[in-house]
Amino acid sequence: MVYLSRLEHFNAAHKLYNPKWSEEKNKEVFGPCSNANWHGHNYELVVTVKGDPDPETGFIIDLKKLSVLIREQIIQVVDHKNLNLDVPFMQGKLASTENLVVAFWEILSPLIPGISSATLHSLKLYETPRNYVEYYGE
Amino acid sequence: MVYLSRLEHFNAAHKLYNPKWSEEKNKEVFGPCSNANWHGHNYELVVTVKGDPDPETGFIIDLKKLSVLIREQIIQVVDHKNLNLDVPFMQGKLASTENLVVAFWEILSPLIPGISSATLHSLKLYETPRNYVEYYGE
Amino acid sequence: MVYLSRLEHFNAAHKLYNPKWSEEKNKEVFGPCSNANWHGHNYELVVTVKGDPDPETGFIIDLKKLSVLIREQIIQVVDHKNLNLDVPFMQGKLASTENLVVAFWEILSPLIPGISSATLHSLKLYETPRNYVEYYGE
Amino acid sequence: MVYLSRLEHFNAAHKLYNPKWSEEKNKEVFGPCSNANWHGHNYELVVTVKGDPDPETGFIIDLKKLSVLIREQIIQVVDHKNLNLDVPFMQGKLASTENLVVAFWEILSPLIPGISSATLHSLKLYETPRNYVEYYGE
Amino acid sequence: MVYLSRLEHFNAAHKLYNPKWSEEKNKEVFGPCSNANWHGHNYELVVTVKGDPDPETGFIIDLKKLSVLIREQIIQVVDHKNLNLDVPFMQGKLASTENLVVAFWEILSPLIPGISSATLHSLKLYETPRNYVEYYGE
Amino acid sequence: MVYLSRLEHFNAAHKLYNPKWSEEKNKEVFGPCSNANWHGHNYELVVTVKGDPDPETGFIIDLKKLSVLIREQIIQVVDHKNLNLDVPFMQGKLASTENLVVAFWEILSPLIPGISSATLHSLKLYETPRNYVEYYGE
Repeated sequence: MVYLSRLEHFNAAHKLYNPKWSEEKNKEVFGPCSNANWHGHNYELVVTVKGDPDPETGFIIDLKKLSVLIREQIIQVVDHKNLNLDVPFMQGKLASTENLVVAFWEILSPLIPGISSATLHSLKLYETPRNYVEYYGE
Repeated sequence: MVYLSRLEHFNAAHKLYNPKWSEEKNKEVFGPCSNANWHGHNYELVVTVKGDPDPETGFIIDLKKLSVLIREQIIQVVDHKNLNLDVPFMQGKLASTENLVVAFWEILSPLIPGISSATLHSLKLYETPRNYVEYYGE
Repeated sequence: MVYLSRLEHFNAAHKLYNPKWSEEKNKEVFGPCSNANWHGHNYELVVTVKGDPDPETGFIIDLKKLSVLIREQIIQVVDHKNLNLDVPFMQGKLASTENLVVAFWEILSPLIPGISSATLHSLKLYETPRNYVEYYGE
Repeated sequence: MVYLSRLEHFNAAHKLYNPKWSEEKNKEVFGPCSNANWHGHNYELVVTVKGDPDPETGFIIDLKKLSVLIREQIIQVVDHKNLNLDVPFMQGKLASTENLVVAFWEILSPLIPGISSATLHSLKLYETPRNYVEYYGE
Repeated sequence: MVYLSRLEHFNAAHKLYNPKWSEEKNKEVFGPCSNANWHGHNYELVVTVKGDPDPETGFIIDLKKLSVLIREQIIQVVDHKNLNLDVPFMQGKLASTENLVVAFWEILSPLIPGISSATLHSLKLYETPRNYVEYYGE
Repeated sequence: MVYLSRLEHFNAAHKLYNPKWSEEKNKEVFGPCSNANWHGHNYELVVTVKGDPDPETGFIIDLKKLSVLIREQIIQVVDHKNLNLDVPFMQGKLASTENLVVAFWEILSPLIPGISSATLHSLKLYETPRNYVEYYGE
């Protein structure tokens, strides 16, 4: 069992804001992250799949196909977008890094077996070089 | 003459959009950067000053004072903000990296001599790790 | 279960030296790391906690509170200090990266539940970009 | 149980090419990676061992001995070499990152106990900063 | 006058070898870099142009056009290639980083004015993160 | 004229302390950097030389000779050392990054012509990834 990882990135705006709360409570809980006019990040997403190398190719997955899948399913939807307003699968959810990584998993996990004999192992999402989350699907 | 550099960072939303143009022309010229609902970046700003080391301190500038100046004058104004809507000194200007770096120079350049015998040499502003601008004040 | 990580850094002096041994044996085992007058590093500490995102905030932990906790409990005690001489919790221990990471765990692990419903998952401590240790509490 | 990691690097040429296939099939499956005249990479290898810190040294392994072992067993054999033509342990195998990391494990795993009471935990091999593999020996 | 930089990368094989010299002299001067079967690198190329920001766009150059130009003129020719054998503009030249950066300048310099009112200022070429060259066209 | 840069690193302890001043004044000016028992850094030194590529080698300097020179003249003297106590050429000087980079220039500048037809162009010294100085010899 070998684990293979691919890094992709996207730039997006968001804010942390709970519409059920007052302005004051949002400011108190989320601080500057709740700024009404948004802020943004250069996000980096690491997708890790696992499987056995194919004896004919030496690959557990075709890296080109993996990159295309991530770009078509995730990057095109979130890059140069507003995560709160523009992204269908984040509607009704707080645009936290934790919620993003779980949403990405739900999209990618069922699609990896369609392009390989590998399965999705984990996702790692950097909001900044100093803050990141990881998710293993459970 | 020694050059000393200090890196600070901020996260902000922006869009590239010329209000004198149609939606179509903005989309044609700026592409996804003109997305109506904004996008954002983790910006990194490198401030470089030059001067002669003080024999009493070994410093050309007190790095702590330089960091405080950059944070008070620039970072507090742009961090977790929308560069088009929230930043007084960008009003009426396109929020390009080129225009940002020139605006930062106009703020910082006259203030460096107030905290040291050094002068501002250059500013370097990363929009992403792969795109950045530099300005030397002329 | 989502894992969230926060990176903090500190600069410190130390040496590797076993007081029960002769100078010669210390030099033989620890080489230049045993230099009598110390040497030092820019350490980077990654603190990873795990938990379920709170539906009200989208967070498994308030990142601001986590950062404050790390700074108050660890960074203030070790930053710009001598790890052998100045740090109470390293007294009587060899100031190796392995021993440091275990000592940090003992301090942080009981305090994470006090600021969140998350628990400490792992600590990663870089002595240099090419040498680092990890600890999972067991 | 503490985990300690050491990063080493090497520069090598390779191509992805299955000699049982036609030129066309190789081009179709491996794309530009099958270029007849090779291409190359700056590889980075992270070796992670695990064990209990020795009370006399604070170490789970002597980092100097670990570095020497990696250099003598791996780096000297692959650095500034052609992975397909020059490396004995890759003969008859596709020079994929997956196959390389497994081959490195087979060499290093039995040798770690000879220089310490630690054991090999994992290998991580970067082909580029955006593509890497990990192996845990099973 | 603002300076704008764009980073692109490519992976290539090469060797340092002077065909006028004996094997022994090549080995003596170039060491492992002269390995007969090649070695390779992940090269990073930083292209810096200079000009005045256009008041209509805020740009000194359209970054998308700059990126396309670099990819069409340079990256497509050298990526996943052998710099000694496959690259027309390196024929008859030693494939050193110094010679590469000068050859890239000769290609890019006359083409920048065709896509903007900016001019080429400098090229920076990393062979590894620790070795790089710069060229200013004179 | 091509510029070639080589990065080397060293780990050292130091403190900022002016022996002509009281403890209070040192603490006031240098803050935690004046800690009596020292602190330390992973320094990175970039040495840039300039010259014309030799038509026989494609080099402006033999990178191996440059690396050996830097290690013998600088790195061996400062690595795993206390910059205030152990380094002959820093005696009687404040161990600031500014003073270090000037001292390194005085050592390296006259020696570069002895190993090549190139000359020293600049030195860049990182104290941390966010603080660095540059010196051009005047």
